[in-house]
Amino acid sequence: MPKENKFPKKISDLGEFGLIEYLTQNLSLKNPETIKGVGDDAAVLNFDKKLSLVSTDLLMEGVHFNLAWHPLKHLGYKAAIVNFSDIYAMNGFAKQLLVGLAVSNRFGLEAIEELYAGIRLACEIYGVDLIGGDTTSSMSGLTLAPTALGSVEKGFEVYRSGAQKGDLIVVSGDLGAAYMGLLILRREHEAFKVNPNHQPDLSPYTYVVERQLKPEARKDIVKLLRDLKVKPTAMIDISDGLSSEILHITKQSDKGAVIYENKIPIAPETVLAAEEFNISEITAALNGGEDYELLFTIKQKDYDKIKGNPNLTVIGHITEEKGAYLITNANEKLKLKAQGWNAL
Amino acid sequence: MPKENKFPKKISDLGEFGLIEYLTQNLSLKNPETIKGVGDDAAVLNFDKKLSLVSTDLLMEGVHFNLAWHPLKHLGYKAAIVNFSDIYAMNGFAKQLLVGLAVSNRFGLEAIEELYAGIRLACEIYGVDLIGGDTTSSMSGLTLAPTALGSVEKGFEVYRSGAQKGDLIVVSGDLGAAYMGLLILRREHEAFKVNPNHQPDLSPYTYVVERQLKPEARKDIVKLLRDLKVKPTAMIDISDGLSSEILHITKQSDKGAVIYENKIPIAPETVLAAEEFNISEITAALNGGEDYELLFTIKQKDYDKIKGNPNLTVIGHITEEKGAYLITNANEKLKLKAQGWNAL
Repeated sequence: MPKENKFPKKISDLGEFGLIEYLTQNLSLKNPETIKGVGDDAAVLNFDKKLSLVSTDLLMEGVHFNLAWHPLKHLGYKAAIVNFSDIYAMNGFAKQLLVGLAVSNRFGLEAIEELYAGIRLACEIYGVDLIGGDTTSSMSGLTLAPTALGSVEKGFEVYRSGAQKGDLIVVSGDLGAAYMGLLILRREHEAFKVNPNHQPDLSPYTYVVERQLKPEARKDIVKLLRDLKVKPTAMIDISDGLSSEILHITKQSDKGAVIYENKIPIAPETVLAAEEFNISEITAALNGGEDYELLFTIKQKDYDKIKGNPNLTVIGHITEEKGAYLITNANEKLKLKAQGWNAL
Repeated sequence: MPKENKFPKKISDLGEFGLIEYLTQNLSLKNPETIKGVGDDAAVLNFDKKLSLVSTDLLMEGVHFNLAWHPLKHLGYKAAIVNFSDIYAMNGFAKQLLVGLAVSNRFGLEAIEELYAGIRLACEIYGVDLIGGDTTSSMSGLTLAPTALGSVEKGFEVYRSGAQKGDLIVVSGDLGAAYMGLLILRREHEAFKVNPNHQPDLSPYTYVVERQLKPEARKDIVKLLRDLKVKPTAMIDISDGLSSEILHITKQSDKGAVIYENKIPIAPETVLAAEEFNISEITAALNGGEDYELLFTIKQKDYDKIKGNPNLTVIGHITEEKGAYLITNANEKLKLKAQGWNAL
């Protein structure tokens, strides 16, 4: 295929500098804050009259993803999204992305192109400029080290620490799907290992699998809250499960919380998958993580502005007394525990 | 030892959130731009009236460092320095640092504390706020993914692309020492592997070994240039060797360069070590890398301002004709090639 001969197929033909140049060619800058992107010692940004936000989240092979079932393009997309999500969780907008990438020699140029195609797609969709990074070799495995930058108008920034007694606890979208997607992918992979002729039929699980492999970040919710003139009192994104995130807000706000099992939004596909695995869908929502929905608190007077919006669900409220509790459908009161990542 | 019982010794006792909290306790913020550091989804910065700079450089075990001879505290220090250096290379000042850290279970809490002690020491000395990061597990090895942020007054930013015909090429400090330090550490490690009773005597090599294990970044040079009212026309830091960096400047400035072998500043300790290894000290300077000195170009009219300064050496000049050349002591003209990292 003559077309394929037009570009080098080996990373070693390009070298480090050539590789970065190759992967970042034709990048157009979308944000006026971005003065200079890829190609110098540092990117240059101009954030006059706004606060800038910056966050980094590592993705390690074998810990955060398994390439046996995670397509590289989706993985690149997810690595970007996970970092954008932290910026939205501050009530700001992601504007720039840097990507540190370490790859072992088992990856060829096409693999890295796939990964970058996903990163670039996420940047395109979310209006983010890819402004730099570092590409290097690794002794084993694939490491993604993205850093997202964003901005927020002064006075609009929202921390985890601002929740007040009586505030309503709100969550976007639905929870637990990404975790069920992971369980399904793992199950199918085990079946494949036992019988390499096993043909997985993932079609009944499209929704939960996609939530795991190619999640979205809730930029739309940050916009919606601006339009509705609602400023959350505290906000966080759900990366480690609802329990863990509620505990972050109550700890940093020095308050407590009560949430209701029957209010937690869970998709029908998540319920079906949970039934198959004989686990409670509430457990998936509380402890599963990787939903990248937004969890936030609002003043009661703002309730009328958000009620009826299908993207937002009130699941409980903030209390003066410390401790975070789940009121079950059987009217039991259970103390929430962080079940997120808890051991190296 | 009762004192040691006061803090947990196992990472698993702390969990991810506890670990970050533990490692970043008692951090005081030094820069007025830093509104919020560690502890939320993103750090918050206020860069009014200045340009912000951001850069990331990964350090992978087995590729960028070898723990057989690299003390963890020095490694943490170096990881920070390497990233600060990119900010100084823009003629700006490093202000904030985020550190992504992935560790396998062969590392205990004390090891990570050592690493962080080095990171914190570098931040202390360079006046940088440690504002966040991510700590996670890894299947194997240690990965450091720092991101440095900085700022520069508008109009003072310096790119790689601004060199003009006739500009003088200047380098800070001396070159090649870090590479010779690496060769010595490798040699002693090989001797130790053959005979575990081998007692390395590194004292004759203190300078070159320290340049490898615990380099410094040239914040002082950026300050000096401000004081002297010299704005470089182009600047880069020397991480991959003088050759590679000269080629970056000439390529991005669309110019050529001539440098002179007898002008390249090399420490006597570097010369001695190179003699022991029977290699040319010029090769170490051109291709060795990791010196983290600044390489920059200035207008000829600024020469009087910098001449006689022991920290700065003029090594050549920029030409209109493309290509970068070394004039040897034998008056040969050799074409410079990038010998930096060139294959994965």
